[in-house]
Amino acid sequence: MNILLVGDICGRTGRTALLKYLPALKKEKSIDVAIINGENSAAGRGITKNTLDELYRAGADIITSGNHIWDKKEIVNFIDQEPFLIRPANYPDPAPGKGFCIYPLKAKNIGVLNLSGRAFMPPMDCPFQKVDQILKKLTRECDIIILDFHAETTSEKIAMGWYLDGRVTCVVGTHTHVQTADEQLLPQGTAYITDLGMVGPRVSVLGMEKDAIIERFKTCRPVRFETAEGPAVFSALAVNIDDKTNKAVHLERILINEAYE
Amino acid sequence: MNILLVGDICGRTGRTALLKYLPALKKEKSIDVAIINGENSAAGRGITKNTLDELYRAGADIITSGNHIWDKKEIVNFIDQEPFLIRPANYPDPAPGKGFCIYPLKAKNIGVLNLSGRAFMPPMDCPFQKVDQILKKLTRECDIIILDFHAETTSEKIAMGWYLDGRVTCVVGTHTHVQTADEQLLPQGTAYITDLGMVGPRVSVLGMEKDAIIERFKTCRPVRFETAEGPAVFSALAVNIDDKTNKAVHLERILINEAYE
Amino acid sequence: MNILLVGDICGRTGRTALLKYLPALKKEKSIDVAIINGENSAAGRGITKNTLDELYRAGADIITSGNHIWDKKEIVNFIDQEPFLIRPANYPDPAPGKGFCIYPLKAKNIGVLNLSGRAFMPPMDCPFQKVDQILKKLTRECDIIILDFHAETTSEKIAMGWYLDGRVTCVVGTHTHVQTADEQLLPQGTAYITDLGMVGPRVSVLGMEKDAIIERFKTCRPVRFETAEGPAVFSALAVNIDDKTNKAVHLERILINEAYE
Amino acid sequence: MNILLVGDICGRTGRTALLKYLPALKKEKSIDVAIINGENSAAGRGITKNTLDELYRAGADIITSGNHIWDKKEIVNFIDQEPFLIRPANYPDPAPGKGFCIYPLKAKNIGVLNLSGRAFMPPMDCPFQKVDQILKKLTRECDIIILDFHAETTSEKIAMGWYLDGRVTCVVGTHTHVQTADEQLLPQGTAYITDLGMVGPRVSVLGMEKDAIIERFKTCRPVRFETAEGPAVFSALAVNIDDKTNKAVHLERILINEAYE
Ligand SMILES: [Fe+2]
Ligand SMILES: [Fe+2]
Ligand SMILES: [Fe+2]
Ligand SMILES: [Fe+2]
Ligand SMILES: [Fe+2]
Ligand SMILES: [Fe+2]
Ligand SMILES: [Fe+2]
Ligand SMILES: [Fe+2]
Repeated sequence: MNILLVGDICGRTGRTALLKYLPALKKEKSIDVAIINGENSAAGRGITKNTLDELYRAGADIITSGNHIWDKKEIVNFIDQEPFLIRPANYPDPAPGKGFCIYPLKAKNIGVLNLSGRAFMPPMDCPFQKVDQILKKLTRECDIIILDFHAETTSEKIAMGWYLDGRVTCVVGTHTHVQTADEQLLPQGTAYITDLGMVGPRVSVLGMEKDAIIERFKTCRPVRFETAEGPAVFSALAVNIDDKTNKAVHLERILINEAYE
Repeated sequence: MNILLVGDICGRTGRTALLKYLPALKKEKSIDVAIINGENSAAGRGITKNTLDELYRAGADIITSGNHIWDKKEIVNFIDQEPFLIRPANYPDPAPGKGFCIYPLKAKNIGVLNLSGRAFMPPMDCPFQKVDQILKKLTRECDIIILDFHAETTSEKIAMGWYLDGRVTCVVGTHTHVQTADEQLLPQGTAYITDLGMVGPRVSVLGMEKDAIIERFKTCRPVRFETAEGPAVFSALAVNIDDKTNKAVHLERILINEAYE
Repeated sequence: MNILLVGDICGRTGRTALLKYLPALKKEKSIDVAIINGENSAAGRGITKNTLDELYRAGADIITSGNHIWDKKEIVNFIDQEPFLIRPANYPDPAPGKGFCIYPLKAKNIGVLNLSGRAFMPPMDCPFQKVDQILKKLTRECDIIILDFHAETTSEKIAMGWYLDGRVTCVVGTHTHVQTADEQLLPQGTAYITDLGMVGPRVSVLGMEKDAIIERFKTCRPVRFETAEGPAVFSALAVNIDDKTNKAVHLERILINEAYE
Repeated sequence: MNILLVGDICGRTGRTALLKYLPALKKEKSIDVAIINGENSAAGRGITKNTLDELYRAGADIITSGNHIWDKKEIVNFIDQEPFLIRPANYPDPAPGKGFCIYPLKAKNIGVLNLSGRAFMPPMDCPFQKVDQILKKLTRECDIIILDFHAETTSEKIAMGWYLDGRVTCVVGTHTHVQTADEQLLPQGTAYITDLGMVGPRVSVLGMEKDAIIERFKTCRPVRFETAEGPAVFSALAVNIDDKTNKAVHLERILINEAYE
């Protein structure tokens, strides 16, 4: 079984790049399931029904998210109807949507879980406590378990990787929009990367127009941001899972950089 | 000219790995200058005279640092006597030590500058204002200019990269201890990477014993940390600079992962 | 019934001031129960068995605390044996100690609860969820319920006041060490103050030597702090509770400022 | 000379309360100058030309502000034309507007200065460095100097009070919207209070509708805030300054609480 994990899709440039690269990659790498972080798909902030449909049309099978999931208000109108769109499971109860889903494929159940970190992020429920609690269920019902841990600091993400090593199939980080080079099999067999990176415009700061962000850093005053355009980066991780053991056996980090014009 | 930039050296394991890999790399890659971030070299926090000497003996030519530079008190006794040991230039005046140095080599002046970010870090002087001010001098006096931008967030680092594109030879990030995969030549020719990553123990959280860090995340109570041991990771970036134009022409990201035992 | 709530006791100067003012106040105001925040009683950080005993000898009946409770390691040796020493209830399970206690007096049960805020503080369990859960028990078993909400921001404290208005007898804030002037009966009858203020040295910053704190703000470097000495401030709130209705009927804010020398 | 300092005016309720109480107070207390923090006067966020005019019509002589000053975009159209409207002086250069002004009255020059803290606030220029620099000028040109230090933490505000004790006439804090009870003459004669408190709706969290704020704390999701209405609080400090020595000799804290309905 081959699973492709794709980082935060940023705005139109990100959606276009997804459509351009994902179908070919799925063929080339014999991908069975594509898990995509969509929290920035609608103009860099949030998800609309339209951008969600674009992600599905590009080949996304499961959509994870993060802190930006609520930025477009219409999300609450459809999140409960989408079986394979999830948001961090550690939002306090009751929150719209769900924090994990089970995707059936080839006689296997793939559990996909989304959590948010708390270091330099909103003080949600403890992701470590929450994962223990959810794994009681997922471990019983799933053959493969994947976590998208949407967090700011490398320390919280790495800590989560070690915490789950041997307990889940794969832990990937998202949120910082820069791919890290530390993809690896941890000693107990869990596939891990600190951050998948984004799919979005290269000439940008995390997908947003760079000059506005620089201005905000320089002035300490509020500045209006727009999504950037131009050449894209596409960031993903392919994980090959042994069909007998259900364990990750190989990782391939994928980073496509379109040339600067 | 070939410059090697090495990320935060963490504790004894980091110093040992530096000694093990740096001399061979310098030969193999024909490195002319090695710039090393030493802020965590003494038991994970700070620099002592002894650990500084170890870094030099391993082949470091210039030592940069960051927020942990002050953790071992003895630093203030020797920092002003060390011509090639620098700390972030945006500490408020007057601070011990200096924020940049000029290293003469082969009839060229290599300016090396250290700055700290402010997002989720202490509120030091503005790194963007400060770099403008220092570059007035360095641009006049140096052929090659390298910045170690010690910062937490990808957004502040990337913003700095764009801010300096075409104005300096190379911008590298440090502080998160995880190497990013985005090494590149920016459109105006500046070599850039968001984070070099660390040199330290792999079975750890940023160099420190993992179980203690996990416990702190789970309990929200203070926990005592020690540096970890075991197999090391060595993270660096080699930048080849054209001798005529003084511009970066090629980058090679280096990541050595010792096997988990 | 008259209850006296006293803010964070800071170091030796705070303990001495408590001993000087509390016994007389208890007599003068016919105080039945004195609830004291002791988190800073041991050299400004934490509680030892000795400083705890001093608080009791000065007349404390119940001791609340906050984020500094763990700073002296010996706390874990005795916190479980102290029936009337509590720590924020929203530390993740399992934590040493307990988050509330029930103090029996004059045929009434006084429930005292301690919670920590999360804005600009460690990301503990949600204090709003936690208080709902604990109140299910306390409401059944207690006649009077007092909350010490140890939090940084005025917004989180005020929000908690409104959240509990009419559900508990009294909500007092602690942690900022400065008494606020907004003591009042909220519309549904809950007695409220945003912060009690501290008992400690006036010539200080929150109880610590002022020059060191100023130096830290000016240098952005780590600075060693010691507790300050000299004239004290004593900060408290007396709440008169109607014996028939068990509702707060009158508040008196108490602020004793010893003269600057 | 009598100076009245009034805390953050919050929305329509705050402006109405200002109009209701300020003129009478100015007469009753023989106030010569009224200094008002206006950062929240326009719907709780920012200042418009209209709300500014309302503040002046109510009797404001000088308007200070804080982090919210930029929230209504039109501010940049008129801030440079308003001689007595100031914003924190430690915004990085160049920023619209000015950080201090000199108000001439009765053959005296009253220097009014505005600074922002940095603890849990944007990383602006250092307020301690900045105040040293500005005081060089103001000390020469002014008889009386007043600082509105707009900051979050009690520690940064108190540190500033001690830093300026004996160097300026008066230091008042703003931003937390809750009046503190620690008004005093510091040992070297500077009048000081940690926070003036707000002028705005009592049934609110810092002026905003309380249920929305509680919901945000409970859900960790974005929630839209509106200003609250209903009975008002009016918070101020009157400082009497000796005409011969130009030193503060007496402080009177003013807190008007309209009854809950
Ligand atoms: Fe995110
Ligand atoms: Fe994102
Ligand atoms: Fe480091
Ligand atoms: Fe660092
Ligand atoms: Fe505290
Ligand atoms: Fe305290
Ligand atoms: Fe305000
Ligand atoms: Fe403010």
